[in-house]
Amino acid sequence: MSTQHTATTASEVVQKATLAKHAAPPLALATTEQKNSALHAMADALIKETASIIAANAEDLRQGKENGTSSSLLDRIALNEQRIAGIAQGLREVALLPDPIGDQLAEFTRPNGLHIRKVRVPIGVIGIIYEARPNVTVDAAALCLKTGNAVVLRGGSAALHSNKRIVEVLHEALRDTELPADALQLVIDPSRASVDEMLKLNGLLDVLIPRGGHSLIQNVVRNATVPVIETGAGICHTYIDETAQYEMALNIALNAKVQRPSVCNSMETLLVHEAFAERHLAQLAEAFGASGVELRGSASARLLVPSMKEAADEDWDTEYNDYILNIRVVSSLDEAMAHIGAHGTKHSECIVTENQENAARFLETIDAAAVYHNASTRFTDGFEFGFGAEIGISTQKLHARGPMGLPELTSSKYLISGSGQIRG
Amino acid sequence: MSTQHTATTASEVVQKATLAKHAAPPLALATTEQKNSALHAMADALIKETASIIAANAEDLRQGKENGTSSSLLDRIALNEQRIAGIAQGLREVALLPDPIGDQLAEFTRPNGLHIRKVRVPIGVIGIIYEARPNVTVDAAALCLKTGNAVVLRGGSAALHSNKRIVEVLHEALRDTELPADALQLVIDPSRASVDEMLKLNGLLDVLIPRGGHSLIQNVVRNATVPVIETGAGICHTYIDETAQYEMALNIALNAKVQRPSVCNSMETLLVHEAFAERHLAQLAEAFGASGVELRGSASARLLVPSMKEAADEDWDTEYNDYILNIRVVSSLDEAMAHIGAHGTKHSECIVTENQENAARFLETIDAAAVYHNASTRFTDGFEFGFGAEIGISTQKLHARGPMGLPELTSSKYLISGSGQIRG
Repeated sequence: MSTQHTATTASEVVQKATLAKHAAPPLALATTEQKNSALHAMADALIKETASIIAANAEDLRQGKENGTSSSLLDRIALNEQRIAGIAQGLREVALLPDPIGDQLAEFTRPNGLHIRKVRVPIGVIGIIYEARPNVTVDAAALCLKTGNAVVLRGGSAALHSNKRIVEVLHEALRDTELPADALQLVIDPSRASVDEMLKLNGLLDVLIPRGGHSLIQNVVRNATVPVIETGAGICHTYIDETAQYEMALNIALNAKVQRPSVCNSMETLLVHEAFAERHLAQLAEAFGASGVELRGSASARLLVPSMKEAADEDWDTEYNDYILNIRVVSSLDEAMAHIGAHGTKHSECIVTENQENAARFLETIDAAAVYHNASTRFTDGFEFGFGAEIGISTQKLHARGPMGLPELTSSKYLISGSGQIRG
Repeated sequence: MSTQHTATTASEVVQKATLAKHAAPPLALATTEQKNSALHAMADALIKETASIIAANAEDLRQGKENGTSSSLLDRIALNEQRIAGIAQGLREVALLPDPIGDQLAEFTRPNGLHIRKVRVPIGVIGIIYEARPNVTVDAAALCLKTGNAVVLRGGSAALHSNKRIVEVLHEALRDTELPADALQLVIDPSRASVDEMLKLNGLLDVLIPRGGHSLIQNVVRNATVPVIETGAGICHTYIDETAQYEMALNIALNAKVQRPSVCNSMETLLVHEAFAERHLAQLAEAFGASGVELRGSASARLLVPSMKEAADEDWDTEYNDYILNIRVVSSLDEAMAHIGAHGTKHSECIVTENQENAARFLETIDAAAVYHNASTRFTDGFEFGFGAEIGISTQKLHARGPMGLPELTSSKYLISGSGQIRG
């Protein structure tokens, strides 16, 4: 009674989180077949409702243009038949993934005869705070549903009409399944207050996952009292050691910078051993220049390539997500590792070397979610790791670190079977 | 430079956390042998300095008496030769446990040839905020050191002299080892401000683990922006089903309540199926009464045992940690599970039944860290589970759930070895 009363007089956020919380226990008991069948029903519904979703999306785009939204953001928001088909296909791919719920993580029998099992269970209710792209709405809903978690989505206002229509369509689809449709909630309130409220919703939300830019994530990390899985920020380095092969080093460094500069696993700073730099820095700089990358060098780098702009102190701590690269020449592996320790964000770090001892020391010493030897940092990704899904890349050390797939959206519980054991 | 400057002008908390942060990387690389040898050196030092530790403890006890501290609290603070020997023995037992650091959690090769390993690594710097008992100081230091984590301890002011002397002794011992002594820090400032400061120390502390009573834990959970592992609060239920054997049910329920009422895994509410209650509730009530337990009953329970006091609404949500027990008679397993869903704290819950189907449904449905069939909830404990250690019992769903042993004090990282792979 009291909960219902609260729900009808409370804010939208509390109302919807309460509905999600009540839907979480029955969803947690859903079978894999029920969940997969719901995912296919959701995909079917998105395809069937393509026209109405595109119409809602057009309203977002119209308002965005009126408000002077950048064309790159509008492009990320824009939906068309092909993109919606891709999103629906994503739902079917999640249905194909193994269901982690119920997996047995440990089993043992104690000397007193207690039989103890540790099994995977859903987390409960997951809050996701994200920015513009409406595909995140479907993606997050699918990954949470597959792992038996209720979800409260709070997307960016720039895609509000699209998100509303998408969630209506998904709700309609869920109502024809055996799963509780209330397990999927979208917060409509576009104000900052609705985010602030979610951050403090202990007891209703079990975890918050922010997805978006630095300021969104930092707002959540700094202000949430609900447990947070921090994702995203990446000041990633590639260190080219003395013995690196030039072609390999060039390819890896270029790939890490220019293959997709806007993402968190791209490189922001290139560290080059002085012996390698003397031989190759000019060539490297030329190759980056030809790819449209602005270079900012340390004093040591500019001795070799004076045409480089000088890097300012704050550049070493900046996530450009753009065609800009810092270059520093170092005199040793230790100097490179110290630089990474001081300026890295513990996301993805790479050494290119033919010296196996140096490679081993780098892998062991560097404190990051993903540490590479002779491969591009761009591989830090749930799909590239073979997880078949990704809810984000955790840059914190608790619960999950690195690309998060379905198992990272689960918790566990101990099941203990006895025959009357009591503690002495 | 700037960090050192900060450290010398900053508060005690920031200074010590900074020292711990700088000590964390070398500690993370320490070998198992180095860590075990340090644990033995710490144990030896505690034994050797028994007299000076007892003298410092006497000062805490003297001040406690002056301040009117309760005798039960003074007893928890008090150290003598035997208790110190026990604490030192605890260090040697931690040395005997397997070292989880470096354990390989996964290994796979991708179609593109990337070889990916997931290995256990330390978390970094752990902050522990706790109350009176000085044994926690040594215990937490040992578990953190064994897992390669630096630690910032902030114990209760009632044991401040004891804790200071203990940490001095441990520091002296560490200085003769190959480990960085700065990895162990004790915050001396007894003010609330030092706790408040720790709660917001993102960037210096990787995780906070509060250990203590409800208000200490809630203060940390509600106000910390550093990730928290919530421990402790336990409103645990035992449900006696229709088909339970009387003797087994009585033994399990009595054990769950009276074997040690002050701890979080003891029972606060007994739920009894009406058919069982009609046959046995009077006997049960008598047995609890004989053990000095005050009973507070639902209306349905008081129909059968009118001598019981009536339970108030808030009693069902109260963690007594005392010789008080709520009793409610229910008409079905579902009613029992609904009660647990509404009033439990997701710690430890038990069903006593001979009906295997009901047992399976209870184990599957109840959302708690530990769910028991025919055994006392008092077994929720790292030592009883065979972990050989316990830093606390997590009642949250992220990172760790239930008793936390050494692996729960670790994180992981991915190590990726390639031969020049780049992303297409």
